Amino acid sequence: MYYLGIDLGGTHIACGVVDADGRIIAQAETETKAERPYQEVIHDMGVCALRAISEAKVAQDDVKSIGIGIPGVANNDNGYVIFCTNLGWTDVPLRDELQKVINLPVYIDNDATVAGFAESVAGVSKGLKSSVFLTLGTGVGGGIIIDGKPWSGAHGVASEIGHLTLLADGLPCTCGKSGCVERYCSATALIRMAKETAAQNPDWLAFRRIDSDLNRISAKVVIDAAKEGDTLALDIFNRFVKYLTLTCNTIVSFLDPEMIVLGGGVSHAGDFLLEAVRRELPNYLMFKALPYADVQLAQLGNSAGIIGAAMVGKIHTEGA
Amino acid sequence: MYYLGIDLGGTHIACGVVDADGRIIAQAETETKAERPYQEVIHDMGVCALRAISEAKVAQDDVKSIGIGIPGVANNDNGYVIFCTNLGWTDVPLRDELQKVINLPVYIDNDATVAGFAESVAGVSKGLKSSVFLTLGTGVGGGIIIDGKPWSGAHGVASEIGHLTLLADGLPCTCGKSGCVERYCSATALIRMAKETAAQNPDWLAFRRIDSDLNRISAKVVIDAAKEGDTLALDIFNRFVKYLTLTCNTIVSFLDPEMIVLGGGVSHAGDFLLEAVRRELPNYLMFKALPYADVQLAQLGNSAGIIGAAMVGKIHTEGA
Repeated sequence: MYYLGIDLGGTHIACGVVDADGRIIAQAETETKAERPYQEVIHDMGVCALRAISEAKVAQDDVKSIGIGIPGVANNDNGYVIFCTNLGWTDVPLRDELQKVINLPVYIDNDATVAGFAESVAGVSKGLKSSVFLTLGTGVGGGIIIDGKPWSGAHGVASEIGHLTLLADGLPCTCGKSGCVERYCSATALIRMAKETAAQNPDWLAFRRIDSDLNRISAKVVIDAAKEGDTLALDIFNRFVKYLTLTCNTIVSFLDPEMIVLGGGVSHAGDFLLEAVRRELPNYLMFKALPYADVQLAQLGNSAGIIGAAMVGKIHTEGA
Repeated sequence: MYYLGIDLGGTHIACGVVDADGRIIAQAETETKAERPYQEVIHDMGVCALRAISEAKVAQDDVKSIGIGIPGVANNDNGYVIFCTNLGWTDVPLRDELQKVINLPVYIDNDATVAGFAESVAGVSKGLKSSVFLTLGTGVGGGIIIDGKPWSGAHGVASEIGHLTLLADGLPCTCGKSGCVERYCSATALIRMAKETAAQNPDWLAFRRIDSDLNRISAKVVIDAAKEGDTLALDIFNRFVKYLTLTCNTIVSFLDPEMIVLGGGVSHAGDFLLEAVRRELPNYLMFKALPYADVQLAQLGNSAGIIGAAMVGKIHTEGA
């Protein structure tokens, strides 16, 4: 049996045929062109999905379901996307529209939840009953796996870990609150701190290397400099690690999963980041003598979107 | 069928025979006298449990399991209490010792988790699949119900909601971190804020009413004064509500349960507290247009300990 996974992004749509073990058999891609009416976008998703099935050389009857990861919130009772900010979608009947092209059961979930589930089926948290996935990118997203299943909450809005309050009355957040995790643990946070450092230290070597151009400051610039031992970059990195580790501790204190998986752009810092978080975490634990969540880097990269979406479809049609 | 529930506290042990719907049929109580060797305390638990069974006038064969709520952390694989601070217990073989007196299956869980489960079987969150229980007392404890079952985490240390970081680098906490929820949302926090207010305002009416005695400041003193419209007390109460509501928002953003249940001593403030939290919560929500957790007051009071413990035993022996 096979399961179709669709990773719906703001610029690209990626479709893949995935086997029961979470291996991608074939995949296809198309542009989103999100400015079009949603009917056209969804039609193209269906056509792209059919191409992936054709590439996979499997009978369409052997494909059991379609799972879709979206950067937004969905309602699986009626198959609607409730909203999806960077596509400009509100109350879009994604399931109905897609079934006009491929008549299979359709299930939709948040992209970070889907990526976390992918890791727990075929990635670093494979086989674990409980894990929490963190995407450290422009923002911070989360995915929760409990009892081997994704947990999206009672109203589909769980695992918005980027919007837990980490510093009450702290930096204003795009969500309207202040001091959210996302303000301190994202690539955006690294860039903000680096811009402040550059403003105060115009001779900062790491800054001069990018021609003292504030627009060229990226998470990678900061982390690469920190890896080389640049003192100012290390100071930024250590502050970032402190906040990220406090967030990991909050995950341990709240849910106590078997594993915390770090994904997203910032996680490309690799072992440098992982080992810093692992070093710091025991300092914050409430129960220092007890075992606690292993912290690991995500393994599946961009494939997580397709694999996780396909596996969400599988679990909805067949159970855990 | 019946299930025995034991609420093991620092000063008292309460045992009850509970039916399948979470109703207490009979109960018995004894003193803990925690300074004794654990063998003696556990022996008395067993004797007290037998008294409750005798009171209930049910055949011992009709009692299927024993559940125990402890103010600490347990390992249900081996039936050991890993530790229990206010009893001074570390690695205590509670199951083995208790089975010397009553030979029934024994399951142990944290007291706040047990109380939250009681509410979801027979209290305000009855029948809901997901809820989070907060005990607002000297500290802040939590209980998580997911898919109708208590979630204690992969290592038994979940739902320590009092030790999520709410204000990084904030007030030092007993756990060794700084800025934990417990520092801002407990009775202790209300008392701390009131002492600060009293020091700065020696003429404060609410303070003079307790003979300007700092030792008589309690959560109730502050809340009663706030209810009467005392400006300084209202200021304290409003700050408390803000932090508590941020914590409720963190619960929504993390787990998105159907309900958040407020219990513990501070929850005796009743509708005055409940309505304040309900008024404030929408301001903090990320998805303001979507449904979100109902916030309610706990209903079962002290009975929650016995009922929840008994139901933990039931769910372990019979499944959800």
